[in-house]
Amino acid sequence: MPLLVVGSVALDCVETPTASRDDVLGGSAVFFSYAASFFSPVKMIGTVGEDWPAAHTRFLEARGIDTSGIETIPGGKTFRWRGRYLPNMNDRETLEVHLNVFGEFRPKLGPGHRDAKFVFLGNASPVTQLSVLDQVPEASLTVADTMDLWINIQRDELETLLRRVDGLVLNDAEAKLLAEDENLVRAGHAVREMGPNFVVIKKGEHGAMFFSEHEMYVMPAYPTPRVLDPTGAGDSFAGGMMGHLAALGRFDPQALKEALAYGVITASFTVEDFSLDRLASIVRPDLDRRLAEYRQMLMF
Amino acid sequence: MPLLVVGSVALDCVETPTASRDDVLGGSAVFFSYAASFFSPVKMIGTVGEDWPAAHTRFLEARGIDTSGIETIPGGKTFRWRGRYLPNMNDRETLEVHLNVFGEFRPKLGPGHRDAKFVFLGNASPVTQLSVLDQVPEASLTVADTMDLWINIQRDELETLLRRVDGLVLNDAEAKLLAEDENLVRAGHAVREMGPNFVVIKKGEHGAMFFSEHEMYVMPAYPTPRVLDPTGAGDSFAGGMMGHLAALGRFDPQALKEALAYGVITASFTVEDFSLDRLASIVRPDLDRRLAEYRQMLMF
Repeated sequence: MPLLVVGSVALDCVETPTASRDDVLGGSAVFFSYAASFFSPVKMIGTVGEDWPAAHTRFLEARGIDTSGIETIPGGKTFRWRGRYLPNMNDRETLEVHLNVFGEFRPKLGPGHRDAKFVFLGNASPVTQLSVLDQVPEASLTVADTMDLWINIQRDELETLLRRVDGLVLNDAEAKLLAEDENLVRAGHAVREMGPNFVVIKKGEHGAMFFSEHEMYVMPAYPTPRVLDPTGAGDSFAGGMMGHLAALGRFDPQALKEALAYGVITASFTVEDFSLDRLASIVRPDLDRRLAEYRQMLMF
Repeated sequence: MPLLVVGSVALDCVETPTASRDDVLGGSAVFFSYAASFFSPVKMIGTVGEDWPAAHTRFLEARGIDTSGIETIPGGKTFRWRGRYLPNMNDRETLEVHLNVFGEFRPKLGPGHRDAKFVFLGNASPVTQLSVLDQVPEASLTVADTMDLWINIQRDELETLLRRVDGLVLNDAEAKLLAEDENLVRAGHAVREMGPNFVVIKKGEHGAMFFSEHEMYVMPAYPTPRVLDPTGAGDSFAGGMMGHLAALGRFDPQALKEALAYGVITASFTVEDFSLDRLASIVRPDLDRRLAEYRQMLMF
């Protein structure tokens, strides 16, 4: 089942205690698509400026990702983000954000995109996410991400979105902020009661939590000793998760749980190098091998 | 198989964002013993002052815990700790510590204690822990806890201890400090290479990690929506873990993994109320029911 993702396409500058990289391929839609491409066909919707290197598009297309939905804005500049990770490699500070063309991102979906069945609304304003929802009337599974900025400045629109999507993926700090509760278990349930059928809270190096009406569970992160750059881990998680669901073509509780595990495993590779370097170095059997190891790890 | 524990016996004052308690029963040996008593007979070694309420001893003995190894120091005062939890209920600050009689704690084990086979060296100085090790020549499983203070001021003695114990249990911050590595996976392996056959890193609300020569795994915390007071969670975890091992009388990899799960589950009850209030309200089938739920949670 083809998977549609809408989100940011970016050039990232990443600083860590041991190394740094400038102008590397990044953005929520990029990490999501690459991760999902191990599982199912993916179509990306995004926007870039004239400074966007054609090599990046070719790199994504070589994975079979449909990039026809990436619009290049004449005279525009691509979204840029610069961040620095603290020594624990889990917390980070944003040093610079230049929204550039992403600030005016109002995607118009073409006929090849409007019939999408599985849709992921990556990081963008709730207004933008809602306008995309309006353009995918046949979607059977819609999942959104969000961030603290939108919780703070577009809360009403976000609440409207939450009543319309099937699932929400957000990180622990965002869940606490949105639910106004420091206990993540209560926060997850509270966010679910705002509308979505299920909520996934991403906890970075501590894994992820799942909440639906009848289920709640936690999955730890896969413990890799090699954490070079956590950028994109959350979007890779979502990509692995949605990719698996789109491949199955269903999203019953068992499928969702497996999908979360695939999300955890996909993200565990992403953090092992900068940008998409590590994901670009593996093949699908690597994901399945690590998933089997992870399954064994959780069995007692 | 009887289980011996040596550690602190304390009166705690606990402040949380929503409630506080003064002079409640606490201390590493107390939480450990009570938790372990769900699984196996326990003998406690500790020291208290004349201010120690006899009711506390009766409370422990009513659980079948052998308190004959608790020495009352004439004219002395019991160890006291006062702490305050931050709103996230995972991090805390220590407001006051009065070691009192615990500062001079040099346990002399009697004949009923020297033949212990399963021994847990709760929080005490490595020098004290080593002196206890010398007094249990027949021990088949010795596991120690430690804390940042000893890593900082008695590192040599701690390293001697690490070469002599079978297992070490410590929290994430302590593991990073001891290994001088911010990556917990690498830190766990590094600490294990200092001597113990296995190392368990406690991550509070994020669960625990296990390291041996051939195995490494992570277990999430059981996600309880009710976190009233995390004090003693780590010691309850160790108590559940060691209690299960002592009950089995073995500590092969499968037993250790089950033991860690029991530790997680026991600690999940401890945090649901102040002091030992929650553990005192449950029976063994409650632990087994939650363990079964936890096992299911981790299966996909």
